[in-house]
Amino acid sequence: MSSLEPKATDRRRRGRGRRPRTEVRDAVLNAAAEILLREGMPAFTIERVAAEAGVSKTTIYKWWPSKGALAFDGYFHATESELEFPDTGDIAADLRTQLRAFVHLITATPAGRVISELIGHAQTDPDLAVALHTRYTGPRRRLAVDAIRRAQERGQIRTEVDPETLDAQLWGACYHRLLVAGLPITEAFAEKLLDNLLSGIQAPTSPATTRAAPRPDRSSKSRRRRR
Amino acid sequence: MSSLEPKATDRRRRGRGRRPRTEVRDAVLNAAAEILLREGMPAFTIERVAAEAGVSKTTIYKWWPSKGALAFDGYFHATESELEFPDTGDIAADLRTQLRAFVHLITATPAGRVISELIGHAQTDPDLAVALHTRYTGPRRRLAVDAIRRAQERGQIRTEVDPETLDAQLWGACYHRLLVAGLPITEAFAEKLLDNLLSGIQAPTSPATTRAAPRPDRSSKSRRRRR
Repeated sequence: MSSLEPKATDRRRRGRGRRPRTEVRDAVLNAAAEILLREGMPAFTIERVAAEAGVSKTTIYKWWPSKGALAFDGYFHATESELEFPDTGDIAADLRTQLRAFVHLITATPAGRVISELIGHAQTDPDLAVALHTRYTGPRRRLAVDAIRRAQERGQIRTEVDPETLDAQLWGACYHRLLVAGLPITEAFAEKLLDNLLSGIQAPTSPATTRAAPRPDRSSKSRRRRR
Repeated sequence: MSSLEPKATDRRRRGRGRRPRTEVRDAVLNAAAEILLREGMPAFTIERVAAEAGVSKTTIYKWWPSKGALAFDGYFHATESELEFPDTGDIAADLRTQLRAFVHLITATPAGRVISELIGHAQTDPDLAVALHTRYTGPRRRLAVDAIRRAQERGQIRTEVDPETLDAQLWGACYHRLLVAGLPITEAFAEKLLDNLLSGIQAPTSPATTRAAPRPDRSSKSRRRRR
């Protein structure tokens, strides 16, 4: 990415206040993402980002309240295209495609290390936690929730299913392996996550269990009665 | 807990080498858990644990290779009874009971803050990460996996379901809210996690989607009879 762009010194020569707002914003986010993914959080400072983007620290602080906010915006910006949500009309296929891209990103690129470091620090830094929720997990979850809602409108996913709960059982389950369990995150794992949710985990010959009964009753009326 | 136990000074008076091995081990784990849950990770040092347990630092280092190993053992020890896995023969009921206890522990006691701090530090401390996996998540996951395997043997859960994947979609989904999403972890959330997995998320009228087809009709027998 960096070889295609003018060097920071070239950019700076253009002078302050001459570049359009969106161009400056992009330059800052690109610089933030590059430093994060290349060198990780320890090397990430507002000074470094300002120098690499060819802007002043004041400009950065005008738009980003903290280093953490800039880090998560930079991370979102860098991973946005890779984590795009397809919309083919087939939710199972779309979830599979997006999960595969997510698995690739967090296992085969430096993004996994970066996001786990950032989330790790957020556990003891309340400002960073707010930045995590508002600038990264919130926006990313909304993309998944929107896709699931569209599938509910198309009649592919039960309307009682809460999209945010589903988010926790797909991407959240991958984060659990990344941050907590330390087990490998593979495409096969992503497939199993989807299979468990799409098909349900109960054995066809399962005896009735409490509350959440097996699926045979297709009408919501009788289901409501049973509960 | 502390008021029921002799003070560290009383314990120490008994002299070194006089207490049985298991009693010393319990004293260390109790002291570790108490410091962790009362004051959190910043106050947690081998010195403090040694003083409160009435043992020498050397004794602690003989059994625990690092502060992190002792912290996770202490945390496991403190939460063991609360997170016990029931075995009533009804896996849906057992999962529900255990998840409820887990939700209570991480939301209504200091345990949630402590474990998120510990996991947070583990993201940038490889020794702590090893301690997390070997002394906490590994042993806890085995209890869940064993319960799920028993349910598979009883014919309640499909044999193709991987118990470790299920672990990530139940407890892992709760950890995702605790560490990543910052959304509330409630009993209602735990119910939804279970419902999604037990009943499957596909709408009954769902058109066939790729690969994971809707669940085979469970009432095929009775329907055949009807025909």
